[in-house]
Amino acid sequence: MLNESDIIDFLQTRFPALEGIGDDAAILSLSDTESYVITKDLLIEDIHFCRKYCNAESLAHKALHVNLSDIAAMGAEPKYILLGISIPNDLEGFFNDFLKSFAEACEIGKVHLIGGDTTKSLDKLFISVTVIGLVKKTHIKLRKSARKSDIICVAGNLGDAHVGFQALEHNMQGQGLKKFKDSFLQPNSRIREGLWFGERSEVSAMMDISDGLFIDLKKMCRASKVAAEINLDNFEPSQEFKAACHALNLDQTIVQLTGGEDYGLLVSVNAESYQKMKADFSSTFGYALHPIGRIISGIAGEISFTQKGLPINIILQPFSHFRELS
Amino acid sequence: MLNESDIIDFLQTRFPALEGIGDDAAILSLSDTESYVITKDLLIEDIHFCRKYCNAESLAHKALHVNLSDIAAMGAEPKYILLGISIPNDLEGFFNDFLKSFAEACEIGKVHLIGGDTTKSLDKLFISVTVIGLVKKTHIKLRKSARKSDIICVAGNLGDAHVGFQALEHNMQGQGLKKFKDSFLQPNSRIREGLWFGERSEVSAMMDISDGLFIDLKKMCRASKVAAEINLDNFEPSQEFKAACHALNLDQTIVQLTGGEDYGLLVSVNAESYQKMKADFSSTFGYALHPIGRIISGIAGEISFTQKGLPINIILQPFSHFRELS
Repeated sequence: MLNESDIIDFLQTRFPALEGIGDDAAILSLSDTESYVITKDLLIEDIHFCRKYCNAESLAHKALHVNLSDIAAMGAEPKYILLGISIPNDLEGFFNDFLKSFAEACEIGKVHLIGGDTTKSLDKLFISVTVIGLVKKTHIKLRKSARKSDIICVAGNLGDAHVGFQALEHNMQGQGLKKFKDSFLQPNSRIREGLWFGERSEVSAMMDISDGLFIDLKKMCRASKVAAEINLDNFEPSQEFKAACHALNLDQTIVQLTGGEDYGLLVSVNAESYQKMKADFSSTFGYALHPIGRIISGIAGEISFTQKGLPINIILQPFSHFRELS
Repeated sequence: MLNESDIIDFLQTRFPALEGIGDDAAILSLSDTESYVITKDLLIEDIHFCRKYCNAESLAHKALHVNLSDIAAMGAEPKYILLGISIPNDLEGFFNDFLKSFAEACEIGKVHLIGGDTTKSLDKLFISVTVIGLVKKTHIKLRKSARKSDIICVAGNLGDAHVGFQALEHNMQGQGLKKFKDSFLQPNSRIREGLWFGERSEVSAMMDISDGLFIDLKKMCRASKVAAEINLDNFEPSQEFKAACHALNLDQTIVQLTGGEDYGLLVSVNAESYQKMKADFSSTFGYALHPIGRIISGIAGEISFTQKGLPINIILQPFSHFRELS
C-alpha cells in the first residue's frame, strides 16, 4: 500500500515549485506581509473515529480541532472553515446534533464557516474539513528548518490520547481515566501556543504531533535533513498516567513515544535562547514546555535514544488507532 | 432527511454576516481589487460515481472539473487545489492511476496542487477536493442578483450527461451514445466562459448547472427573490440527442429540464444587451448561447413554463443519479 510519504514524494516531484507540501498546511500569499495557510483533513468513520463511543458533540469538536491544530503548527490564526460531510440516511438526529455542536465550536474558536458540501453516504459517516488561517509572513513556522544543536520541545502531554483510546476500546471505567478519554475524544488544538511560537525567531521549526512523537519527530528531521537524539530521562510522566498505563498493561515510555492524536506542538528551539523561552512559556501558559532531546547531525530522519547518559536501543511499533494507514 | 437547503438555512441563520454561503464558492478578500474564491465538493463511491464504468482517469477528470465548474461560476480563475482521498486497501493500482491522471488534469487546467490528506477507507473510495480561485472583485458573479426582465441563458448542452448516465446504467452500446457517456464521465468545466461572463456587467447573476436546469434555476430565483418563465419553444435539441432519448425511452424535454451533471453555466443577462452579447459569445467560443426564458416578478423561486405563447403545466421529478440527496 502506498503510504503518505510516497504520495508526498510523488506530488513534490510533480509540483516541484510548491512550498508547503508535506507541511501541516499549504501557504498562499496574501500581501507583502501576510499569507493565508490552508489545511484539509479527512475523518472517516471506523478509520478515525467510532460512533460507539464518540457522540456528535465530541466528533464535531475533534473534526474542528484536528484541523485547527495544523493551523496552530504554522504559527497562524484560524479564520475560515469549509465543512464537507457525507451522512448515511439513518443518522439525521446525529447530523443535526453534529451541525449544532460544530457551529458552537467554530464560534468558540472564532472561525467563520464559509461553505462546504453535504451529501448522502451509504453507511459510513465521512467528514472533510478545510481550514484557512492568517499569518504574518515572518511568523510562519515550517518543519524543514530544524537546526543542529536545537533543543526539541513539546507543548502538551504525550500519550494521553492513546491511553484514553485504550480505555475506551477495553471499556475500562474509573474516574482516573476520564481525562485520558477526553484527550482522545475531544483534543484541543493549541492555537495560542502556536501564535506565541510563531512570534519567536528562536523557534526554528514547528509541527503538530498527530501521529505520535517518534513518527512526527522523524518527519521533522527528514524534512530538515538532520537527526535527533531523544533523552529518555526527560520522560517522567504523572502519577495518573503511570496508574492508567499500569491498569491497561501499557508500557508508559512506549506510549509516550508512539501514541498518536495528542495534538501537542513539537518545536525545535535555538539552544542559547531555550532557558529563557521555557520560563516565558510557563509564565504565559501556566504549564511547562517539555524538553525531550536535541537535534544532531546524522542520517536525515534518524532518531536515537539515550538514558542516564548512555545510548539505548528501543524498537518501536507505532500504534495505529482503528485502521489508519501505517 | 435534511436537504441541502435546510442546511444552508441553518448555517445562514448561524453565520448571518457571511457572504457566499449558498453560492458556488465562498469569497475571501485578498486586496482592494481582488478576492480568492474557495469551493469544496465531495465525491463518494456509489453515490456520485460508480467504478463499474468509471475508470481512474475519468474519475480524476471529473473530481477536478466539478470543482473547477464552481470556480468558473463565480467568474474566477482556478489557481490552487487540495486533494483529500480515502482509499480501500485493494485499490492501490487504481489510486496510482488516479493520482497520475489528477496531476495531469491539474497541469492542463493550470491549477497547482498545494496539499491535502490521504487515508485508508474500509471499502468505498471517498474524494474531497478544495479549489481556490482568483477573481477581480468587480468580476465576481453571484446567484442572488438576477433581475426582473433579464434573459436567462445557458452556455452548454442540457441533458447530455443524463442521457450518458442512462446509456451506461442500461449498458447500451452504439457510436451515437459515446459523446453522451463522455459528457457524464468526463464533464468539462467552462472556465473561459466563466471569466468572459465575469467581465460583462450585463450578466447580473451566474451559477453552474450541476443538479439540472430546473432545480438550479429555482435556486438562482430563490436567492434573487424573483420568479422565472421558461419558454419551451427554445428547447430544440440536436438529432443525436433526440435519437438517444428515443433509444433510451426518455422524454427529451424532461431530460433537458431536469438531467443533472452537465456543468454548463446558467446566466441572467440584461435584456437590452442580450442580442449583442449572444453574438459576441458565438464568435468568441464557436457555439451558441441558448436563451431559455426570462426572469419575471412572482413568488421567489417559482418556475413557470410557456409553449407557443401559452402557459403550460409540467410536473417535474428531478433525476437523482445513483443515490444522491434529493
